Amino acid sequence: MREFIPPAARFADLPTPFALHRGGTLTGARIAYETVGRLGPERDNAVLILTGLSPDAHAASHPADATPGWWETMVGPGRFIDTDRWYVICLNSLGSCKGSTGPASPDPATGRPYGPAFPELSMEDIADAAAHTVRALGIEQLACLIGTSMGGMSALSLLARHPGLAHGHINICGAARALPFAIAIRSLQREAIRCDPHYNGGWYDEQLYPRRGMFTARKLGMITYRSATEWDSRFGRTRIAPGHRTTDDGPFGHEFQVEDYLERHARRFADRFDPNSYLFLSRCMDRFDLGESCATTTDEALSRLDVEKALVMGVRSDVLFPLPQQRQIADGLAAGGTDVAFAELDSPQGHDAFLTDTARFGTHVAKFLAEL
Amino acid sequence: MREFIPPAARFADLPTPFALHRGGTLTGARIAYETVGRLGPERDNAVLILTGLSPDAHAASHPADATPGWWETMVGPGRFIDTDRWYVICLNSLGSCKGSTGPASPDPATGRPYGPAFPELSMEDIADAAAHTVRALGIEQLACLIGTSMGGMSALSLLARHPGLAHGHINICGAARALPFAIAIRSLQREAIRCDPHYNGGWYDEQLYPRRGMFTARKLGMITYRSATEWDSRFGRTRIAPGHRTTDDGPFGHEFQVEDYLERHARRFADRFDPNSYLFLSRCMDRFDLGESCATTTDEALSRLDVEKALVMGVRSDVLFPLPQQRQIADGLAAGGTDVAFAELDSPQGHDAFLTDTARFGTHVAKFLAEL
Repeated sequence: MREFIPPAARFADLPTPFALHRGGTLTGARIAYETVGRLGPERDNAVLILTGLSPDAHAASHPADATPGWWETMVGPGRFIDTDRWYVICLNSLGSCKGSTGPASPDPATGRPYGPAFPELSMEDIADAAAHTVRALGIEQLACLIGTSMGGMSALSLLARHPGLAHGHINICGAARALPFAIAIRSLQREAIRCDPHYNGGWYDEQLYPRRGMFTARKLGMITYRSATEWDSRFGRTRIAPGHRTTDDGPFGHEFQVEDYLERHARRFADRFDPNSYLFLSRCMDRFDLGESCATTTDEALSRLDVEKALVMGVRSDVLFPLPQQRQIADGLAAGGTDVAFAELDSPQGHDAFLTDTARFGTHVAKFLAEL
Repeated sequence: MREFIPPAARFADLPTPFALHRGGTLTGARIAYETVGRLGPERDNAVLILTGLSPDAHAASHPADATPGWWETMVGPGRFIDTDRWYVICLNSLGSCKGSTGPASPDPATGRPYGPAFPELSMEDIADAAAHTVRALGIEQLACLIGTSMGGMSALSLLARHPGLAHGHINICGAARALPFAIAIRSLQREAIRCDPHYNGGWYDEQLYPRRGMFTARKLGMITYRSATEWDSRFGRTRIAPGHRTTDDGPFGHEFQVEDYLERHARRFADRFDPNSYLFLSRCMDRFDLGESCATTTDEALSRLDVEKALVMGVRSDVLFPLPQQRQIADGLAAGGTDVAFAELDSPQGHDAFLTDTARFGTHVAKFLAEL
């Protein structure tokens, strides 16, 4: 079990004990965050980014860490989220392994990592920890709360649980609840990790590590993050060049470029993400339903959210967070009186489009922020 | 390694040696088939069905085996493929484990199953073995050759390699070549089986059997055979009823009905299909490209096929054999002068629609056959 903390991460301490939504508490928990830009004297220019399952808090480069962040083309001086104007906070979700407290962090009670003994985590906890971090930074209201993918879920939960904390909201490829296709995919990803003999009930170590299970989980992720159309034009039926295989040459070994592409990505990911963190966050997403969380229907819960203006975006080729889910968010918010802009994008990159097709997304984001 | 031979299967012997497309030969190989209806005195009413990866030759009930077949609502007296008029032959693909020679069959050289030592199998071999079976039944020309899913691939290969053997052709949810999205899915399925420690390089037995790998492969299959829309309405976010879980109740155990549905299907499948057969057939599909097979482009190869009339059908919600692939077949055949009807269906059941939504498919099939 290992944490992967970006070099410029800063930390906000959560209150001790930090009570979790499904019971259980955390002691001495913290949230890793980074900021780009400057908080104005009125403290009214803060933009918070809540991430998908895997990214860390390093969304973009800044003086303390000049390496490109995971949303580098989106965030920065003069970029779509212009840090000359906005004070951008990106935080690592509670339960992750990139600096915020999660299963790979030491349990103060034992001095060893929590591992599978980490308490049951919910989207509501991720939202509460984020809200606490915002307040700990001395910010009473965010100019805008941005959530991408899983971050779209935790953002909605934050809006529901901390009314008034955000003036504007941008929900990108998010969902107000998990539906069975995505649940099935994630269930299979978790099974691949859990059933790897090296998982050992969650008590693996660096030597005996469920690497194979992580490979399968990540490959399945990649398959659902992208689109068939994009891969047709990118890989077609091209074979792996002789001598370039990463794996064994057995009778059923890899032969096509697309197989090699998945293998290389999976290897990188498996070495940079804690398997228990993956399981906890993945499970969180399945269990999330803003309606259940607010003891009402999903639509009703959306309509009750207290936010002035919102931009909701989705992509036609996204199979994991399909477009009707973003339409549900937009319609629900509008029904409650929020001034909603809805953008349905044509990117061929599937769910990952918000990471790769920032030109298309960014135009909408910049326009929305400019009009806030 | 086990074969699963339907009780009423009959067998056609392939010539010995039977030379395979990629080298290697089979000795004493055979093809399992069943027939429904009667061959007319002119021997001109034969319809051959080539199946997807998993079905056996028992497409429909008949006097020798009254149990419902895998296409029961489609084939029979007075049904869409009317066995009062047509002599319907369904055969089990070479390489399968349902009566035709495959990795689970005994290798005459050793008396033990071939296992992973089965020679490299290609779609071309499946097609040649089918053509041989048709001729062994005393049929010079099929009235119609029907191929579904993988059978749509082997049917195209048969048309290319045995010109004149079919007068009409129905291609259902098929493809003229494998594309990277489907290759990636199948590669991951094969990996799940190969990496199960019980796979043991293909030399498993009933005690040490790669059951876990087969579960994952099948679940991933189910996910891609169906559609998100169908599952939303069928399962929603319904939980598994207390006491109905099929698996352990560990912290990441199954919770939603969709997970239980997949588990039950996967268990049934894993006990009824030979893992090596699965690997060989799956690999066959990835490698298939009618263009490569005919040393030209896919479109050109399609246009050269010698068939008078064709019906090509696909489903909008199919992600595994997406609609543009059926359009390619229809356009290619039409470019070569075949009289082509193309039907784009709206079934929500995804790739599996041809098995479940036979009412919609059957109408087109019956009309096409009536006009032959």
